Amino acid sequence: MSFDEELVKKTVAEFLTDNPKEQGLDVAFIEICRFLYDNPNRLSWRSKNKPSVTDKNGLKILAEKFFNGFRRSDFPAEPGTIPDEMVSIVMQQAYGYSAEQCEKIKIEHQHSMCAENCVGALLERYLDSVLRKQGWHWCCGDFIKAIDFISKDKNGKWLVLQIKNRDNTENSSSSAIRNGTEIQKWFRSFSKKGGTNWDNLPELMQGYNLSESGFVAFVEKYLKEEKARLNN
Amino acid sequence: MSFDEELVKKTVAEFLTDNPKEQGLDVAFIEICRFLYDNPNRLSWRSKNKPSVTDKNGLKILAEKFFNGFRRSDFPAEPGTIPDEMVSIVMQQAYGYSAEQCEKIKIEHQHSMCAENCVGALLERYLDSVLRKQGWHWCCGDFIKAIDFISKDKNGKWLVLQIKNRDNTENSSSSAIRNGTEIQKWFRSFSKKGGTNWDNLPELMQGYNLSESGFVAFVEKYLKEEKARLNN
Repeated sequence: MSFDEELVKKTVAEFLTDNPKEQGLDVAFIEICRFLYDNPNRLSWRSKNKPSVTDKNGLKILAEKFFNGFRRSDFPAEPGTIPDEMVSIVMQQAYGYSAEQCEKIKIEHQHSMCAENCVGALLERYLDSVLRKQGWHWCCGDFIKAIDFISKDKNGKWLVLQIKNRDNTENSSSSAIRNGTEIQKWFRSFSKKGGTNWDNLPELMQGYNLSESGFVAFVEKYLKEEKARLNN
Repeated sequence: MSFDEELVKKTVAEFLTDNPKEQGLDVAFIEICRFLYDNPNRLSWRSKNKPSVTDKNGLKILAEKFFNGFRRSDFPAEPGTIPDEMVSIVMQQAYGYSAEQCEKIKIEHQHSMCAENCVGALLERYLDSVLRKQGWHWCCGDFIKAIDFISKDKNGKWLVLQIKNRDNTENSSSSAIRNGTEIQKWFRSFSKKGGTNWDNLPELMQGYNLSESGFVAFVEKYLKEEKARLNN
C-alpha cells in the first residue's frame, strides 16, 4: 500500500486545537508518518499490535501518542522513589558527611535527578519551539527509535538527529536508517571541560539563533508558566 | 582446539600473590575461561584482537584484566565532571532552592552519584567475599557481557547471574546463553516500596547468611580499610 497523505491529514485534524503553540504540529505528524512509512523498522512499539501508518486506526493510535507527548508537562515531578540507605552510609564513610546532612542530601539528590530529566526534556522542547517552522519535525511521543528530530535535505533525503543534553549520556542503540542515512548526533554540554556546544549544531539547524541564553530564557519561561498552570 | 586447563593454570599462577583475600581467584579465573570457551559470544571486547582462551598470550591479557579488576579500589572517587548549570536553574525555579543552596547541592549531588556507583561495585565484592568458596565465580574485570557471577548446577550446567543494586537500574542487554541457559537476575533493593531483596536470592546463593546487615558491615570495613590505605 502506498503512503496516503490525505488519510493522515484527515486523522490528525481531529487532534488539532487552535492553541498557537501547537501550530504546525499537523505537518510534523504527517512527515513523521511518512518517515515511518519509508523506515518501518524505526517504530518503537512494545506490544504486539504495531500500528500501521496506512490505516486510520493505526494513525489514530500514533496521533494520540504524539499529542500526549507534546501536551504532557515537563515540570519536574516530586520524586517517586525511596532512597537507598546504603548510599548515605557510603557518603558518611567516604566524604565525611554527618547522618543528619545525609537526610537532607538524599532529598536534594532526588530533586537534582528530576531536574536533570527536566533539562533533557526541555532541550527538545526548546529546539522544537524554534525549528518547527524551519522544516524540522520533533518526534515527540517516544514512538520513533533513537531519533528526536527529522527533516529532509535539499535532495529530499531524510535527515535524522539524536539529541543529548550531555556528552556522557549513553546513546540509544541506533542501527542504520535506509538508504545509508546515518543518525546525526548532537549534545548540548561538555561534562568534562564544561561549557556548551551550540556552535556545533548540525548544519541545517544553524542560522536560527539557537543559543544557551535562548535556552535559559525558554526554560525559565516554561517553568514559570507550568508552575502557574499546575497551581491552578 | 579443546580447553587446556593446564595452560590456564600455568598462566594464572604468574598473577597469584599470597594475599589471603585473593585465595581462590585462580580457580575462579579458570572457570571463567572455561565458560568463555563454551560461550565465546559472551566475551566483551572493544578492540579488534579478541584474546583467545586457548593460547597463552590471550590468557595473559584476560588474567591481567581480571586481576586489575579485583585489585582496583572501589573507594568513591572525587567527581571528574563539571555540573550542568541548567540543572541549578531548574532547581531554583521548580523547587525554590536559592542560588547559594544550589552551589552546595550540585557538589553533594555529584558525591551522591559517586557513592551510588560505589554501592553497586561493593555489592559484587560482598557477594564474592562470601560466595567464592561456595563455587561461585565473580566475573570481575568487565570482560564478560552482562554477567556478574557464574557457577554450575549439580548437572554440570552453567548458571549465570546478573546483579543489580536496584530494581530500576537498566539491565544490560542479555542475549541468550548456549544450551538455553537463561541469565538469572537479582537486584538488592526496591526503589518504589523501599527495603531489600535478600530473601529472594537465587537458590544456589541461599544458605550462606548473605544479608543487608552483612552488606553494611562489609561496606563499612571496606571503606575504612581503603581510606587508611589510600592515605598512606
